[in-house]
Amino acid sequence: MKKQVLTGIKPTGRVHLGNYIGAIKPALELAGNELYQPAYFVADYHGLTKIHDKEEMNQLSRGIAATWLALGLDPEKAIFYRQSDVPEIFELSWILACFSPKGLMNRAHAYKSIVEENLHTGREADTGVNMGVFTYPILMAADILLFQTEIVPVGKDQIQHVEIARDIAESFNHTYGETFTLPQYVIEEETAVLPGLDGRKMSKSYNNTIPLFEEPKKLQKLINKIKTDSSPPEAPKDPDDSIIFSLYKEFATELQTEEMRNRFLTGIGWGEAKKELFEVMNVHLEEPRERYNELMASPDKLNEMLLHGAEKARKKTRPFLEEVKMKIGIIHS
Amino acid sequence: MKKQVLTGIKPTGRVHLGNYIGAIKPALELAGNELYQPAYFVADYHGLTKIHDKEEMNQLSRGIAATWLALGLDPEKAIFYRQSDVPEIFELSWILACFSPKGLMNRAHAYKSIVEENLHTGREADTGVNMGVFTYPILMAADILLFQTEIVPVGKDQIQHVEIARDIAESFNHTYGETFTLPQYVIEEETAVLPGLDGRKMSKSYNNTIPLFEEPKKLQKLINKIKTDSSPPEAPKDPDDSIIFSLYKEFATELQTEEMRNRFLTGIGWGEAKKELFEVMNVHLEEPRERYNELMASPDKLNEMLLHGAEKARKKTRPFLEEVKMKIGIIHS
Repeated sequence: MKKQVLTGIKPTGRVHLGNYIGAIKPALELAGNELYQPAYFVADYHGLTKIHDKEEMNQLSRGIAATWLALGLDPEKAIFYRQSDVPEIFELSWILACFSPKGLMNRAHAYKSIVEENLHTGREADTGVNMGVFTYPILMAADILLFQTEIVPVGKDQIQHVEIARDIAESFNHTYGETFTLPQYVIEEETAVLPGLDGRKMSKSYNNTIPLFEEPKKLQKLINKIKTDSSPPEAPKDPDDSIIFSLYKEFATELQTEEMRNRFLTGIGWGEAKKELFEVMNVHLEEPRERYNELMASPDKLNEMLLHGAEKARKKTRPFLEEVKMKIGIIHS
Repeated sequence: MKKQVLTGIKPTGRVHLGNYIGAIKPALELAGNELYQPAYFVADYHGLTKIHDKEEMNQLSRGIAATWLALGLDPEKAIFYRQSDVPEIFELSWILACFSPKGLMNRAHAYKSIVEENLHTGREADTGVNMGVFTYPILMAADILLFQTEIVPVGKDQIQHVEIARDIAESFNHTYGETFTLPQYVIEEETAVLPGLDGRKMSKSYNNTIPLFEEPKKLQKLINKIKTDSSPPEAPKDPDDSIIFSLYKEFATELQTEEMRNRFLTGIGWGEAKKELFEVMNVHLEEPRERYNELMASPDKLNEMLLHGAEKARKKTRPFLEEVKMKIGIIHS
């Protein structure tokens, strides 16, 4: 039997190249593996811990869904749904809360770091912490456990969430007998930390990102903003010390990369290098961008695809939640 | 328009006379008031914070439902449902969590008193606290706000829960515009603190209760256990200092009560007084007990009534949750 793999995607901001290379691309590669049954979901309700604006939520959530589909997520092969379309998640979340010691939440890294920051700056420990932020790991456990997920690909900062889900599952299983599959995490090797416009890791918080589906003209402008030194065109350049080359090799073929490496070593003008970078990126992103724009222009079609995915998801979640409710005596048998 | 009133009933143990006189009877009287649209629900999922046994949950939850129906709750006039049959409550609960400052929960009386007790006995503050217990006030807010409840009849120890629901509603309304009705509490005067077998307040924790639907023989036995002094039958007795008289007057007519008062003042044997108490109780409880036993013997019928009630409830909750989801941008409009 195929192993159930689950990946959640939180709407936090406009998707950029760093997200694509570092997270989306490797996650989509899983879908090609015959050993896995992948499920991907738009974690819109996770986003609600921070996004308290209707339009922003709406746009970001649609944007996430359109991005993954545009990049090749096949909703026939995978289960692809919006968290908010699967109400069983929230009911299970309450059930799991009753088996989650509060201490487990007190020790969650994300919460602890907010508290530390608060205390450090002389504020009350819980300043600015809403209960969504605090109980977040339980909702995540519900996401994972409801699908009988076996494997959760995570970044290093997410390992604890899978451990918490395991702890809660074990506590429940201990009381009512084997019910939840214990999930395992697989650490996604950060295959590439993509540099941003200023050379630091591309990240929304550094304001140095290149949006994934930027229009060609704007994309070119952004690329032209990449910081370079004042060495003349004919001067040999170290490719491994160049933001431009680092970005180039993520989108180019091996042969193109080798050629470009040589041109750096023998001397290439920065303007020329930027032009080549734009070309190779644009070729790579042209088609997905078009699909993305189409999907964003047809909200009803996108919505329908998501609802279809939710129906597929609920074929699993509905009977399983019933089973859980029987075990705890909530459904009267 | 009628005002929406909501009463939740938590399964905690076998229903006793104290519950009936102090809480159930006054709550049911509300249903007779033409100004109110009453809703009652079996708060089974609230019980899950403590009850981690399938059979116990099943029995208590069914028992609560059967008790209220047996005592005259008319499911045609009121909305009567089981919390676990209305999934919108749990989804709303997550939404509200994202608008509930954690500090609000830290200050909840029930949680605070557990922490105090823990610290007092040298344990870690959160020992034995599960996240169900900690987030309980949010689920309660969801119960209340989802029904656009205007009035919540409460005991004094529950006032804070309505205040918390108001706070959360205000925080949401402040962000997205008027959405939730702000609920008001009405303090149920404790019309009667019913004495238990030992004279203290009748309470499960004192182990001095008389179960509401006890079989006649056992009921008589329990009544015979009521503590009395050694004064002889002919000695005058103070009715206002007697457990027997206190119980008697809750079930007797005014006339009967007056007569019994005189008999106390002129002298009545304790055995005789106990016999009279049994008679008047049994007359009062005979019919409901029969209905209760019938309902408990027909779990399918009971279940059907509850599901019917849930359908009625969801006619309100489904469209309202949709409205909330539109406001926060979760439903893409």
